[in-house]
Amino acid sequence: MKRVLLTIAFDGTNYHGWQVQPNAVTVQQVLGEAIEELLGAPHNITGCSRTDAGVHAREFCCHLDCGDNIPEKAFLTGLNSILPDDVAVVSCREVSDDFHARYNAKGKQYAYGMYMGGKNPFDERYFLHLNSEPDINLMNFFAKTVIGTHDFCGFSSSGRTVENTVRTVSECFVEKTGNKIYFKVTADGFLYNMVRILTGTALAVGYGRCNCNIAENIFITKDRSLGGDTLPPHGLFLEKVIY
Amino acid sequence: MKRVLLTIAFDGTNYHGWQVQPNAVTVQQVLGEAIEELLGAPHNITGCSRTDAGVHAREFCCHLDCGDNIPEKAFLTGLNSILPDDVAVVSCREVSDDFHARYNAKGKQYAYGMYMGGKNPFDERYFLHLNSEPDINLMNFFAKTVIGTHDFCGFSSSGRTVENTVRTVSECFVEKTGNKIYFKVTADGFLYNMVRILTGTALAVGYGRCNCNIAENIFITKDRSLGGDTLPPHGLFLEKVIY
Repeated sequence: MKRVLLTIAFDGTNYHGWQVQPNAVTVQQVLGEAIEELLGAPHNITGCSRTDAGVHAREFCCHLDCGDNIPEKAFLTGLNSILPDDVAVVSCREVSDDFHARYNAKGKQYAYGMYMGGKNPFDERYFLHLNSEPDINLMNFFAKTVIGTHDFCGFSSSGRTVENTVRTVSECFVEKTGNKIYFKVTADGFLYNMVRILTGTALAVGYGRCNCNIAENIFITKDRSLGGDTLPPHGLFLEKVIY
Repeated sequence: MKRVLLTIAFDGTNYHGWQVQPNAVTVQQVLGEAIEELLGAPHNITGCSRTDAGVHAREFCCHLDCGDNIPEKAFLTGLNSILPDDVAVVSCREVSDDFHARYNAKGKQYAYGMYMGGKNPFDERYFLHLNSEPDINLMNFFAKTVIGTHDFCGFSSSGRTVENTVRTVSECFVEKTGNKIYFKVTADGFLYNMVRILTGTALAVGYGRCNCNIAENIFITKDRSLGGDTLPPHGLFLEKVIY
């Protein structure tokens, strides 16, 4: 047996996130079905994390154990021909037997995209539509205050199941390119809805509805109600998993 | 009453083309329903042309007659809030009573997009995936031979209903940008599947499966079997209607 690390990309629009669940189609499920079709038997697949319904990924990682005799290139090509258009295997490589897609992950990078201007059906799928331009400098001021080790409890939704809500954000900034704005954040881990709430708060700061020093208040008070909205999932991309 | 010209954009993936038809959702139908909801009564909408199932449009035009008292800006904003994410009104302006979206159209511009490299779920929706790079110079040679007034009968599918199959192509070229290739063509009119067959033939030329002078042969013999495949609809965009 050998252990394989698969990096996949998916358009999450039609999926209930990564993790298999009853009565909903998930990415883990369609990947599992494709692997079963290709290899002739079901295989356990372990993902790097859960993802929420409707969230996209450019590089999501998962591992599985499979036979020694499968060339990586053939595995990748075979899976891509079976998988639906909205899921793709980006790369496939052998890893050591004790590698674990979730426990070995040192961090993750997310990007939340927004677009300005008239409604555009081709942007609607991957960006949040903004009716007016927020102040990018204010948003960036807020983003800087998020960097560091903090208790992000007040930046998470109540559905969370973890005990420890302290996370370390190593990078956080806002970027404007043409009519697009991206909120980008890298951390050692993320709480439930954390990126969508951070971006929603950055936006509230950019529109002057929140003070640009609001993060400090939320770290101290852990009061979710002080921040901005939890933005919808369709603007969120898991960009990269860091090992 | 005033006559209004609407320019709309749509992601055609989930539609059976423009024209209303039984047992299938079309763009004309959802636009008609949105207009009825906004104005309180059904209105006849006349499109600039039919479009095939799955084809997209950046600027599709249609006209309708509505009351004098509807400000154009409110009409646009109102419709966009009712329409689904994959259809948008780009602009809205008053035209003369005798303007006709179809008969006044002097021409149309289409682009067919292809992408190279590994499978990418975000490109899969709007581009044809090519496994290897075709020769762009050969494709452009073919594109040049298409320009002019010719009988395009051999570049159309048998479902066509028109008598006159002569069309004038004013512009036709192939463009490579990064890992994307675009086949762009402007003409006074298009036959059934014409752009998808022209692009398929350009691709056959680019891969050396057809001679780059093949167009002349097809114009003379009207033999559809000499050209390349009819490419799938998802790479095709109606870019612009010329009035």
